Amino acid sequence: MRDVAVIGVGMIRFGELWERSLRDLFTRAALAAVDDAGVDRVDAMYVGCMSSGLLVEQEHIGALFADELGMGPIPAVRVESACAAGGLALRSAFIEVASGMSDIVLAAGVEKMTDVAGDEATHALAAASDREYEAFHGVTFPGLYAMIARAHMERYGTTTEQLAAVAVKNHANGALNPMAQFRRPITKEAVLKSIMIADPLHILDCSPISDGAAAAIVCPLEKAKELTEKLPIRIAGVGAATDTLALYRRKDLTRLSAVARSAEAALKMAGKTIEDVHLAEVHDCFTIAEICVIEELGLVERGKGGQAAESGLTALDGKLPVNTSGGLKAKGHPVGATGLAQVYELVQQLRGEAGERQIKDARVGLAQNMGGSGGSSVVHVLEAC
Amino acid sequence: MRDVAVIGVGMIRFGELWERSLRDLFTRAALAAVDDAGVDRVDAMYVGCMSSGLLVEQEHIGALFADELGMGPIPAVRVESACAAGGLALRSAFIEVASGMSDIVLAAGVEKMTDVAGDEATHALAAASDREYEAFHGVTFPGLYAMIARAHMERYGTTTEQLAAVAVKNHANGALNPMAQFRRPITKEAVLKSIMIADPLHILDCSPISDGAAAAIVCPLEKAKELTEKLPIRIAGVGAATDTLALYRRKDLTRLSAVARSAEAALKMAGKTIEDVHLAEVHDCFTIAEICVIEELGLVERGKGGQAAESGLTALDGKLPVNTSGGLKAKGHPVGATGLAQVYELVQQLRGEAGERQIKDARVGLAQNMGGSGGSSVVHVLEAC
Repeated sequence: MRDVAVIGVGMIRFGELWERSLRDLFTRAALAAVDDAGVDRVDAMYVGCMSSGLLVEQEHIGALFADELGMGPIPAVRVESACAAGGLALRSAFIEVASGMSDIVLAAGVEKMTDVAGDEATHALAAASDREYEAFHGVTFPGLYAMIARAHMERYGTTTEQLAAVAVKNHANGALNPMAQFRRPITKEAVLKSIMIADPLHILDCSPISDGAAAAIVCPLEKAKELTEKLPIRIAGVGAATDTLALYRRKDLTRLSAVARSAEAALKMAGKTIEDVHLAEVHDCFTIAEICVIEELGLVERGKGGQAAESGLTALDGKLPVNTSGGLKAKGHPVGATGLAQVYELVQQLRGEAGERQIKDARVGLAQNMGGSGGSSVVHVLEAC
Repeated sequence: MRDVAVIGVGMIRFGELWERSLRDLFTRAALAAVDDAGVDRVDAMYVGCMSSGLLVEQEHIGALFADELGMGPIPAVRVESACAAGGLALRSAFIEVASGMSDIVLAAGVEKMTDVAGDEATHALAAASDREYEAFHGVTFPGLYAMIARAHMERYGTTTEQLAAVAVKNHANGALNPMAQFRRPITKEAVLKSIMIADPLHILDCSPISDGAAAAIVCPLEKAKELTEKLPIRIAGVGAATDTLALYRRKDLTRLSAVARSAEAALKMAGKTIEDVHLAEVHDCFTIAEICVIEELGLVERGKGGQAAESGLTALDGKLPVNTSGGLKAKGHPVGATGLAQVYELVQQLRGEAGERQIKDARVGLAQNMGGSGGSSVVHVLEAC
């Protein structure tokens, strides 16, 4: 397999972008990545998108977007794995370049969620759960993650204050990120007083419904220097794994085993351990998700995830910065775009271009992107060359 | 890149399978492929499916199906490109094995179309066209292909009798295929007297709305002999290409340029020309589609596609057998499954296991799978080793 590098990234600021269509979101992010890389062609592309069918009644978006980008007739494929679609689009692009099939491949993620009413978006998102055994019976994602949170509180003594600390940290980071949907710091009190969505999760424990897109250009590492003047960021490791969609089929509600397995595979490929990682972007669709994920990654001991944000360990100036971008919580969560937006942040950081959010001497970053309530997970380990 | 072979295939008979759910369809076809290959594990899987969101309100089906198959926690990704989803799932599996990332990969395709009313299925299928510039204005797929047919008739003198001859041929083949939805020969008169859907296309010019699934197991060619006793079928060439989704953006309505480009790429990779191909499965979602596709593949001269079925050239006992399985027309067209069902037929033929449909001395087969009205196309060249 050839070594593969990210040589360009692009995204648009996430938000409620009512004036922009699905194809417009994609095209802006993709062109930004093409411009960033400085390439004049793309040989193939992958687009991660969860539910353009239910949300805007459009499938077949690979070909549609290749044409919009002026890159048709290149091969173009949509990849879907719920909210992990973006990360898996990058994995597909990585494999295509690693195989020798193509040289310059675009991986993009996009979701247009605000063209439908909130209840319809919730209905579409529930398609990431097991429709027959979960959604049809009335449970939605806040409810599923609330069950995970309750189990974690019972087992490890995790508190609602600790959940709130994750939101406070990520909003503080998002306030420094020009691409974030929410650029406003919040207080623990504000989280705890915000409306209850599914006990113990308040609305400020939940990531928002967003429109947005993000993209990356990958190529063989050995060709990166010919193609671009930017510092190549090597994809040192890639791992993907799955778990049951339905929570009732899991032995332990506090575990997200696909996260652990995908991280293990990615770190093994990279020849690294979690101690080598300087910063991580993780899938905080709800505050409890960040807590469980950092435990699965081994960034903290099992059961200690709740203390991490509260103690400052995962803050921008902490020992293990997590979600320096603001995470899904503050940056926004247009579901298919999230995996690539994580990579956008890591590339900024590893290039030393993250401005006020810059982590000093960051050379190795990890991105963890998750589908549903952990039914799928994909991890990339990125390294500045 | 490593050489890649198909070592197992499976499918279920297509039809209106009201008693089977989406996951059940997939699992039966996937297990049949696993059994056929005789493998005891799968390292990764790809599932082609066009619109499980609009049709059964379920996304995230890669992970869901890996679990159903008892293969979780393997990486599992859904691939979508409208009706070409199945073919592109196989292309992804090919690339993953060729790269060295995985050894045994399952490629499956599935669609469950009869859980909704006919008008809702038509609405879902219209998501393969350009929703904003075509479907919102009322045109559906029979209408789009009717425009292509009209243009072909004007340009080349193609007749409704020639369209009907495609349906007659494919139903004759389907009658010999135990996996076909329709196993009943039809006459030219029956086609011409059947209800008009979109002039000049009668209902017997249209493939049906179907439920179904098909699957293939691929591995490195050099490991095929260790893994299975079946004759390995090498994937000698793979090509994919895109075109505008919307017909109004094309210079020539009679051309399907993505088909030509994808075939050219696949044949080039295989080191072959179209003259080396002994039989082809092509995307006859409508009779006119087969006519245009065989022209784009170079099986016949441009403008002569209409004469091919009428003259017997593409019949089972003709010089260039096309759609020996019965094609989408008679075998059925559960859209995401079609690309893999084509491969199922070719593998049967190249192994010499096609029974009454067997083409003598068939050693090289070509599968052409298309999305929408030609917005995407993927071609595989298969060769008996």
